[in-house]
Amino acid sequence: MLRLYDNLSSGNGYKVRLLLSLLDVPFERVELDIDRGETRTPQFLAKNPNGRVPLLELGPGDRIAESNAILCYLAEATSYLPQARRARAAMLEWLFFEQYSHEPNIATPRYWITHNLLTADRATVLPEKRRLGHAALAVMERHLAAHPFFVGEAPTVADISLYAYTHVAPEGGFDLGPYAAVRGWLARIAAIPGYVPITAWVGREVTMEEASARAPAASL
Amino acid sequence: MLRLYDNLSSGNGYKVRLLLSLLDVPFERVELDIDRGETRTPQFLAKNPNGRVPLLELGPGDRIAESNAILCYLAEATSYLPQARRARAAMLEWLFFEQYSHEPNIATPRYWITHNLLTADRATVLPEKRRLGHAALAVMERHLAAHPFFVGEAPTVADISLYAYTHVAPEGGFDLGPYAAVRGWLARIAAIPGYVPITAWVGREVTMEEASARAPAASL
Repeated sequence: MLRLYDNLSSGNGYKVRLLLSLLDVPFERVELDIDRGETRTPQFLAKNPNGRVPLLELGPGDRIAESNAILCYLAEATSYLPQARRARAAMLEWLFFEQYSHEPNIATPRYWITHNLLTADRATVLPEKRRLGHAALAVMERHLAAHPFFVGEAPTVADISLYAYTHVAPEGGFDLGPYAAVRGWLARIAAIPGYVPITAWVGREVTMEEASARAPAASL
Repeated sequence: MLRLYDNLSSGNGYKVRLLLSLLDVPFERVELDIDRGETRTPQFLAKNPNGRVPLLELGPGDRIAESNAILCYLAEATSYLPQARRARAAMLEWLFFEQYSHEPNIATPRYWITHNLLTADRATVLPEKRRLGHAALAVMERHLAAHPFFVGEAPTVADISLYAYTHVAPEGGFDLGPYAAVRGWLARIAAIPGYVPITAWVGREVTMEEASARAPAASL
């Protein structure tokens, strides 16, 4: 069974949980407390030297980091990963847009606010993040005003990736009111059979101690 | 012929120039002055709503943004794009690492310093970017101490992507002295036949006016 090192409040982790649920793939989960530095312990850094969740464990010593790389791996041979070369390029465009133009400006303020980490230094860069976050939402709005999903006529991992932090953007102070096409698209994603909300995951939990003592049973 | 909207000082643009050169694929280039806002004009925003270079034009109205998405598209069916599912996941891990953990911390200080944009506000976040940039270099060093390239035994687009801003990291104040494995890898990349340096591109240049009047001749 696949094993996901995760944090329930993380949108990056949620991307993986959501896709696994949509694909009806079972997995076990290890919850790490990022506020207590559990992703920066020697034990976890041995698994992911970059010290971040989500991290997907396929088997003994075989792990994939980076949420969007995990999505592409899991979506292989499903409708969530376009096969045509040009469509795959479009999907990757949106995945890199998500990590560069969207996540640092929309997810980071949410993290600071909901985890009580909005220091004075961070408050000074917040207006610029707000401006860039709204610019990213405007790029999405423009696309979704003319297309039902980000690539083609059905949801792909580009939609799963962008959904994760967009649907909780208001928790970071972003009003989605002006983005009608984005709101319509959020509703289409939430209506997909198998959809799960961000923090309502129910299933098998494994502690970090168990995870370190025992490799996951079998790869996908 | 492919057309690349570009800026010679941009490492993201260089990734594409370097791969096209290694693959011996001809292209024409449009230089945009990012300091004068040429990527945010209505004319350019009509081509890329996210207002960034590089942007690869394949044909009339058909364009790919995001440097790492462009690399994957161009590398299709070459040795630079791994075919196996697990190797492709590893390649994507490094590409997302590059855009999230590396570029914002290593490329951005270089941009501020070399373009005289280091304002007081930016100077306050510079120490944190330095810390995170060195953390990214340490992750690379750890990997390269045990492997010749980022994925497998030969260079892939993961190497091209990470090479671009790593080899000019000293221009942003990063001393690569402590990273012996990284320096050895940089030398291996620079030794690949077809290698071109970052700002020495020579070839057909097209002005923005010409580019807007005439679509590129033919797609790849």
